[in-house]
Amino acid sequence: MRIQYQELCDTLSSILEKRGMSHSDAVLSAHLFADASRDGVYTHGLNRFPLYVSYIDRGFIDVSARAELESRVGLIERWKGNKGPGNINAHMAMQRAIELSHESAIGVVALRDNNHWMRAGNYGLQAAENGCIGILWTNAMPNMPAWGASDARIGNNPLVIAVPYKDTPVLVDIAMSMFSYGKLERYAMEGRECPVDGGFDEKGNLTKDPVAIARTRRLLPMGYWKGSGLAIALDLVASLVSGGRTTKDIGELEVETGVSQFFMAIDLSLFPDRDEMERKIGETLEFIDSSDPVKESVKVHYPGEGMRRIREESMKLGVYADESVWEKISGLI
Amino acid sequence: MRIQYQELCDTLSSILEKRGMSHSDAVLSAHLFADASRDGVYTHGLNRFPLYVSYIDRGFIDVSARAELESRVGLIERWKGNKGPGNINAHMAMQRAIELSHESAIGVVALRDNNHWMRAGNYGLQAAENGCIGILWTNAMPNMPAWGASDARIGNNPLVIAVPYKDTPVLVDIAMSMFSYGKLERYAMEGRECPVDGGFDEKGNLTKDPVAIARTRRLLPMGYWKGSGLAIALDLVASLVSGGRTTKDIGELEVETGVSQFFMAIDLSLFPDRDEMERKIGETLEFIDSSDPVKESVKVHYPGEGMRRIREESMKLGVYADESVWEKISGLI
Repeated sequence: MRIQYQELCDTLSSILEKRGMSHSDAVLSAHLFADASRDGVYTHGLNRFPLYVSYIDRGFIDVSARAELESRVGLIERWKGNKGPGNINAHMAMQRAIELSHESAIGVVALRDNNHWMRAGNYGLQAAENGCIGILWTNAMPNMPAWGASDARIGNNPLVIAVPYKDTPVLVDIAMSMFSYGKLERYAMEGRECPVDGGFDEKGNLTKDPVAIARTRRLLPMGYWKGSGLAIALDLVASLVSGGRTTKDIGELEVETGVSQFFMAIDLSLFPDRDEMERKIGETLEFIDSSDPVKESVKVHYPGEGMRRIREESMKLGVYADESVWEKISGLI
Repeated sequence: MRIQYQELCDTLSSILEKRGMSHSDAVLSAHLFADASRDGVYTHGLNRFPLYVSYIDRGFIDVSARAELESRVGLIERWKGNKGPGNINAHMAMQRAIELSHESAIGVVALRDNNHWMRAGNYGLQAAENGCIGILWTNAMPNMPAWGASDARIGNNPLVIAVPYKDTPVLVDIAMSMFSYGKLERYAMEGRECPVDGGFDEKGNLTKDPVAIARTRRLLPMGYWKGSGLAIALDLVASLVSGGRTTKDIGELEVETGVSQFFMAIDLSLFPDRDEMERKIGETLEFIDSSDPVKESVKVHYPGEGMRRIREESMKLGVYADESVWEKISGLI
């Protein structure tokens, strides 16, 4: 089913206000969820909203708490999340990194003790909308085995890099696992295989079968040992610089909460060759888009470009929502 | 064959001095090559030295030129490489980022117009040896198709993250291709398959056959679309912030030269909880290392840990060198 974007935002924000969130925060949080689904990232948009509300109801998320500055170390600001809503806190932290970058060309905010920030890409787009490169990542609970291991001891720690470009920025938003559990579930529901190997089956062989992977819980790191190593490094940098929990520490909690995040912005508008940059980005993206496609019918797109079509469709026809998800959300009003 | 580390350094540096490089620079460059082979990264150690020398002989590398500060934008320093030796320039840029981080906790140097920096991991280790987190990457000539494309229009743009820890820092040093051409060549020479899919064969199917991949030149990005996207984003950030060439621009030159690089250091010694960090890193690495291994006989290691064994062996028995490579190098004296 499809729901108009504004109706979606109104519904979500009223659910949050009912739970004591201030009007302006509820509107922001609702938009962050709606934006994810609008852009096609359903797993961290509407599909995740009921869990977010249940975390409010169970007290893991404090609707009136907000992230705040804890200390400064040189130019790096360390913030703490105070159990506030993860997406609102992350939005604040990114905004602060952007502000800092307006002064020093580069701004870094490390945020500890935050809740799950939902769709990572939102904060990359936020940087790009403010004329900044955004580089950010989060750690997570242990949900993936390290390369060579069979038990989950590292996080899938999503990494985002965004580069502003006209109305369609470059947006890379990648978890360190090849597929999330949400994606595996969707493939299983649709009776489809993963497009590439996504994990291991019970015999320890790589497989595209989403059901077999969900059974072993042995997700494959993207790029095998490469994604495994990157996940470990990103976890350490975020938790050290923020002074917050490592993936290991998060695993000792009841649910995934109190994560560590790293936000960096680079303000391109301060550079004297800003106009030249626009040409350079355009040429690079055009060069990539005009690659010879493997399948003649499938044009090559730069990362973030495909999202635009989904977004336009969502704004015209309404945002796609799974009926069962929308039923659940409607029950929260 | 094996050659004592010091002998190796002396041989390489005398070859460089003979070509007009100053004594101290020749020693530094020789060490950077020797360190790569010492740590097992032969493709960017000794194996690459003859090409480096040929670039000096052909005038692509100017042995007496050095990178220099071009401008400051806020806290970011923009340096230019002036066709100097890529590894020496990169070492200078990383050292400057480290210096800057001693003042501001974070230091960023973007370097344009540099030559190939050889082994990327060296500069991560350099940061770690100075008590800093190091995050750095380079772009490259077009050598890999974007995801969905069949012709090479993106670079394999290696990314490094290093985190200091005792005498064995965490070191992630990953190209955005699943395997380099150097690695494919080695597998082919040894009559082995790649351990995982490394590219496409002539029918457009994923394959582990290194010969088939070398034939199509369709390298597989690590993590498929993920490595492809990341390569594009890293290229843009390095070239925009440095004001240097994009991968597309580099592809228009006669050989791979004039690349753009990004160096970031975070000085952990400035943080009041530095001691706590040491405990946190140790616990995380111990947690990973004590994972249940897939094969009982193969212990899980954190990234950078395996290198230590190779290094110890190299320092004890001598650094491994391929005989044909050593013969080539000996011919340059």
